[in-house]
Amino acid sequence: MSARFATVRPSVVRELLALTQRPGVISFAGGLPAPEFFDLDGALAAVQEALGSPAVLQYSPSEGNAELRARIAERYGALGLATEPEQIVITTGSQQGISLLASTLVDPGDVVLVERPSYLAALQCFSLAGARLVGVPGAGDEVDLDALAELAAEHRPKAFYTVPNFHNPTGRTLTPENRAGIVAVAERYGFRVIEDDPYRELSYGAPAPASLAIGAEPGRVVSTGSFSKILAPGLRLGWVRTDPSIKSAVVIAKQAADLHTSTLDQAAAARYLASGRLEGAVERSRAGYAERRDAMLAGLPGALPEGSIWNRPAGGMFVWATLPETYDTAAFLGAAIDHDVAFVPGAPFFTDPAPANTMRLSFVTYPPEQIAEGLRRLAAVFT
Amino acid sequence: MSARFATVRPSVVRELLALTQRPGVISFAGGLPAPEFFDLDGALAAVQEALGSPAVLQYSPSEGNAELRARIAERYGALGLATEPEQIVITTGSQQGISLLASTLVDPGDVVLVERPSYLAALQCFSLAGARLVGVPGAGDEVDLDALAELAAEHRPKAFYTVPNFHNPTGRTLTPENRAGIVAVAERYGFRVIEDDPYRELSYGAPAPASLAIGAEPGRVVSTGSFSKILAPGLRLGWVRTDPSIKSAVVIAKQAADLHTSTLDQAAAARYLASGRLEGAVERSRAGYAERRDAMLAGLPGALPEGSIWNRPAGGMFVWATLPETYDTAAFLGAAIDHDVAFVPGAPFFTDPAPANTMRLSFVTYPPEQIAEGLRRLAAVFT
Repeated sequence: MSARFATVRPSVVRELLALTQRPGVISFAGGLPAPEFFDLDGALAAVQEALGSPAVLQYSPSEGNAELRARIAERYGALGLATEPEQIVITTGSQQGISLLASTLVDPGDVVLVERPSYLAALQCFSLAGARLVGVPGAGDEVDLDALAELAAEHRPKAFYTVPNFHNPTGRTLTPENRAGIVAVAERYGFRVIEDDPYRELSYGAPAPASLAIGAEPGRVVSTGSFSKILAPGLRLGWVRTDPSIKSAVVIAKQAADLHTSTLDQAAAARYLASGRLEGAVERSRAGYAERRDAMLAGLPGALPEGSIWNRPAGGMFVWATLPETYDTAAFLGAAIDHDVAFVPGAPFFTDPAPANTMRLSFVTYPPEQIAEGLRRLAAVFT
Repeated sequence: MSARFATVRPSVVRELLALTQRPGVISFAGGLPAPEFFDLDGALAAVQEALGSPAVLQYSPSEGNAELRARIAERYGALGLATEPEQIVITTGSQQGISLLASTLVDPGDVVLVERPSYLAALQCFSLAGARLVGVPGAGDEVDLDALAELAAEHRPKAFYTVPNFHNPTGRTLTPENRAGIVAVAERYGFRVIEDDPYRELSYGAPAPASLAIGAEPGRVVSTGSFSKILAPGLRLGWVRTDPSIKSAVVIAKQAADLHTSTLDQAAAARYLASGRLEGAVERSRAGYAERRDAMLAGLPGALPEGSIWNRPAGGMFVWATLPETYDTAAFLGAAIDHDVAFVPGAPFFTDPAPANTMRLSFVTYPPEQIAEGLRRLAAVFT
C-alpha cells in the first residue's frame, strides 16, 4: 500500500452513508439532497433528447461538452465574473475538480491551508496528493486574516482551500470584506485560492456574495462548481473555472483520471440548461430547504443539551452545533443510532486536535415533521 | 504547477483526437469504436428503464451499483476466475481504474515496470502518481521474462503494468505460458501485476487466453476492465477487480477522486446487461472489426515503405507497424495530415529512448472502403 494512505483519516462519511440507509434511521449525517425536489420529468426529457444522437455513447473531449461549458461560462458572466467557455473544464462532480487541482498544484510535502473545520473529502484529496494540511482559524463569518498571513509567511503554502458560501460543515458564509482580505493575503504571499462553491444557488435569503475571483489577479482564484445540489448528484457533473496558467495541467490530470466525464450525462445537462427549467427547479429546492432549515432550528433547543450553541445558515445544507465542553459527540453516536437518529461528529472535519464537542446536522433530506421527530429522538440521546 | 507535470509527455492523444475531428481526415490515430456497432436502441431502452426511479439522480455508494457489480463478478466466474461482487469497484472508465491503482500502490519515487511500448495514458497516470517508469522489453507475443526478473531484482518495483490481450499499442496477445511466467516472477519478487484488460471481448478468432489472476496468489494480480469497447465509451464505465488487501484503499481513492461513478450510467448498464442484448452487440462488433482488420492488412503492403513489417492482431483495435530504420514516423505526420490521413507515431508509447520508425494504426473506426482510401493516401505520403 502506498504511504499516502497513512495520512487518510477513517472514512467516516462512508460509514455514515451506510447508516443513513438503515431502515428507520432519520439521518442528519449525510448531505443527500431531497429526491422530491429533483426535476425528474425535466431530467428524463433532457436525457431522451440527448439520446437522439449516437454521439452521446462515444468518447468525447477531456475538456467537456462545448455547449455545457458555454452555458456555465454564461452563468459566471451573469454573476459578474467574465468567463470564456475555454476556461471551463467539466469534471465528474466538483469532487473531481478538487482532486484535479490537488494533483495540479501540490507536490508531496507542500502545505495547503484549509479552514478549521473543512470539507472532509477535500482534506482526503489533498492528503492523497501528499499535501501537509494546516488549519486556519476563523470565527463567525470570517477567516482570521492575521492568522492566514502568519501561516502563509511560515509555511509558504501552495494554496488555501475555502468553501465561501454556506460552508460544509459549518453553514457560514464569508463576508465580502473577508473575501477581499483573503485574496489580498494570497496576492501578497503568492498562493492560489481554491474556491469550492457547490452551494451558491441554495440561498434562502439574499443571494450569496460575489466570487472571490472578482477583482482578483487572473489565476489567483481557481473556482469549482457543481450541478449536484441543483440538478442531480447522481449525474456527477461539476467543473473547474481555470485560467491559462493552469488549464493545460488540469486537462492532462483530467485525462489521466478518467479521460472525460460521461458524454451522455454532459449532453443531458446541456439540454436541461437549454430547456430553461433549472431556475424553477432551484426555486423549489430553495423554498423546501428553507422550510426544513427552519424546522431544524425550531427543534434544536429541545434536542441538544443546555448550553449548546448553533448558527442560522443563510443557505446550503448544514447546521453546525457546539455542545458544552464536557460533551464528546462521537461518544454519543452509537446511542444515537440505537435511537434511530444520526449526525456527524465534528472532529473529522479538523486537520489537527479538534474540539470533540461539535457536530454537523444536515437539514435537507427530510420533510419538517420527520426533522422534528429526529430531533425528539436526539433529545432522548442527550438526556 | 506541481513538479509531477515535469514527467508528463506532450499530450499526443489529445492533439490527435483533435485531428480526427477535422473534416475529411481519415484518422487511424484515435481508438474510437465505430458508432454504427453501438446498440443505441438497447442503450436507450436501458437508460429509460433506469430513469424509472428517482434514485438514479441521487448520490450512490463509492463501490458502485450492486447489481452491476454482481453481473461483472458473474462474468469473471464464467471465465474461470471465481469472483465475489464485493471484490468489484466500479470506476469512471477503466482509465480511472488505472489511476486509482496508481495512487493506491505507488509512492513518489517507486518504480513501476511497464511493457515497451505501453498504453500512453497509463504511463501518464503512473507518472502523475510520482512513479519512476522502467520499460520491460518483449518480443512477439511474450514479455522477456529474464529481463523482467533482472529489472525486478534491480528496482524492487511496486507493480508491473500489462495489457495482456490485443495490446494497445501493439495488438499482440501474451501466450498462456508467458502469463504464468510473469506471475511467477511477480510472486518471487513480491510485486503486483496490474492486468488492464479492456479489449478481451474483441477477439476475432479464438477467445483471449485466461486472466493472469487465475492460479495466482490472491491479490497478486489486480485486474481492470471496461464497458467502453463493448457497450459504449461515452458512459465511462469500468471496474477494478480488487482483493481484501487493497479494496479499502481503492475505495478511499475512488471517494477522493469523484465520490462515485454516474448513478444513471451504472443503472443503465446494469439494466442493459440484464436485457441479454450484450452478447449479440459484441458479436456484431467482432464481425465488423474483423472485416476492418482484414481490410487494413490487405492495404498495408501498398501503403508503407518497402521493408516495413507489421503484425496480424487476433483482436482489439490496433496494428503496430515498424518501418525501415531510416524512417522517423513523427516527421511524416504533418505530411499525412496534409494528405487527410492520420496515424500515431510510436515513440510516445515508450518510457525511454524509443524507436522512431514505429506507428500505431487503428482499424475500427471506418468501414473497409474508407480504410482502403486512407491507406492509399498514406502511400502517397511515403512516396
